[in-house]
Amino acid sequence: MSDTKTILSGIQPSGKLHIGNYFGAIRQHIAMQEEGEAFYFIANFHSLTSLNDGEQLRQNTIDVTLDYLALGLDPNKATFFAQSDVPQVTELAWILGTLTPVSLMEKGVSYKDKIAAGLNPNIGLFTYPILQAADILIYHSDIVPVGEDQKQNIEITRDLAGKFNHTYSGEYLKLPEEHIVKSVAVVPGIDGRKMSKSYNNTIDIFAEGKALKKRVMSIETDSTPLEDTKDPESDNVFALIKLFADKDTQDEIAAKYKAGGYGYGHAKKELLGMIEEYFGDARDRRHELAKDLDYVHDVLREGGKKARERAESVMEPIREVTGIVRHF
Amino acid sequence: MSDTKTILSGIQPSGKLHIGNYFGAIRQHIAMQEEGEAFYFIANFHSLTSLNDGEQLRQNTIDVTLDYLALGLDPNKATFFAQSDVPQVTELAWILGTLTPVSLMEKGVSYKDKIAAGLNPNIGLFTYPILQAADILIYHSDIVPVGEDQKQNIEITRDLAGKFNHTYSGEYLKLPEEHIVKSVAVVPGIDGRKMSKSYNNTIDIFAEGKALKKRVMSIETDSTPLEDTKDPESDNVFALIKLFADKDTQDEIAAKYKAGGYGYGHAKKELLGMIEEYFGDARDRRHELAKDLDYVHDVLREGGKKARERAESVMEPIREVTGIVRHF
Repeated sequence: MSDTKTILSGIQPSGKLHIGNYFGAIRQHIAMQEEGEAFYFIANFHSLTSLNDGEQLRQNTIDVTLDYLALGLDPNKATFFAQSDVPQVTELAWILGTLTPVSLMEKGVSYKDKIAAGLNPNIGLFTYPILQAADILIYHSDIVPVGEDQKQNIEITRDLAGKFNHTYSGEYLKLPEEHIVKSVAVVPGIDGRKMSKSYNNTIDIFAEGKALKKRVMSIETDSTPLEDTKDPESDNVFALIKLFADKDTQDEIAAKYKAGGYGYGHAKKELLGMIEEYFGDARDRRHELAKDLDYVHDVLREGGKKARERAESVMEPIREVTGIVRHF
Repeated sequence: MSDTKTILSGIQPSGKLHIGNYFGAIRQHIAMQEEGEAFYFIANFHSLTSLNDGEQLRQNTIDVTLDYLALGLDPNKATFFAQSDVPQVTELAWILGTLTPVSLMEKGVSYKDKIAAGLNPNIGLFTYPILQAADILIYHSDIVPVGEDQKQNIEITRDLAGKFNHTYSGEYLKLPEEHIVKSVAVVPGIDGRKMSKSYNNTIDIFAEGKALKKRVMSIETDSTPLEDTKDPESDNVFALIKLFADKDTQDEIAAKYKAGGYGYGHAKKELLGMIEEYFGDARDRRHELAKDLDYVHDVLREGGKKARERAESVMEPIREVTGIVRHF
């Protein structure tokens, strides 16, 4: 293998992406396609743990692909594909499961969190970290950019890879490096809490026109009168502005907050303009791309083919050493 | 679909088969190839839960295929294949897992039994009934001949099929009938307990010559002197003779037991002759087949191909309705 690092990340096909997704993950994904051999998969097997609507899942899969392509994902640089186009991943998950102590899954923090959040305690959720480990290991991934909340799952992945290698006395699976992404900025939702689909406080990346305006205008602020001076650092609107504006513009607007006579309505209008401009080209591209779904499927088809080839090259020696014969 | 019933059974590739396996399962498998469309798979994914030796597993896979072919399995009638040649099965297992309550697995009797017997509590063992359900459901199996101990797992299979069909509002998976095989005869091992590899009390089907003789001669009996009358119904040797002899021969030997002057050594010699004769043709066939491993692999290749085609035809509508896209 070459020195090029393999970067792996999964994307939940859970509907419209919002600017919290963008600044928290998508932007990094797109930047990282320049830094190594990126494999980005749409985690549709995973999403079955909570979504049982085929039409919705298919639509979400297309939407997330359109979103990424519009935002700058270059399929000639990054391999972008659907998890289900790599059947080797459930095969490896089964094999890893035979080496996974039940107690290790019982300790899973993300399982407990999901159950606490009201999801059904099904085996898919319970064994989620195993499928995730297979997703990572099947491409010999070096780097897995994840948030702090996924740290335990990367440790489980390393544990399982190590256990497999130890059991079968060889370096069949590559232990990924931990690579915790410290979020560049916390992205607040329109109510000030962390922006999240489950809080219904999002601003979608590809919202536009009146819908976008309405959303921005409904960002919660305090009730300081227009003429008074304001603290930019305690304001949701300003927190969002900081994501879009360069340093000079930020300073300029902060000065207006502090000077007084500048209301939250003014700030919201500036933010609205910034969002429209920031995602303007992407929005145009998305409209164009949406007219050519054949191309979108071609991207997934080609990505799937590349991913399967890599997965197969990793699985072959694993089948050999475990004795799992294959006659085709 | 035609009226022909699909019969499904799995075979553990756990080494040399013994006459307990033969009278408990193999004989029925071979008879049933005349009664429907039989799919018999070698459960190598399952065996990874307790066997981590690739060379051994590969050898066992070939051995069990040789055994079945020698004993009369006709690959033109029954589809005989390795589980790992049907990757759709782990895909379906994942999908079923997303609908399986963790509590259902926790109630699993066979898991508890295996843990009690000293096996490692790994996720493979824990979720074993789900892979087994996928094995059954992926061929639209009608009949699954199993022993009493597997009854719960067939119920789980029916539960999961029903749950999938209900969740996605359609008859995507076919509920198999229960078909409990009451063992024709309890086959005692040489120590009188149930014949089982784990008790090391087996007589292997293809043992021969001195090894077979030694094994038969070591069957435990009571110490009634040669000249005394004996009770055939309480003797291990006679219990085994009953498996091989026709009614007249059984009556004849029982009479000798009761008359006295007929020792256990005599009975063992008769049994030895019966075993040698009963499996004689199969033994010869096995020697011939073992010279042509290409043929053995061809059988598995062809069986795998047929099984995959059936599995794929069942999976396609399932992918459609769950929204799991596939671009190849």
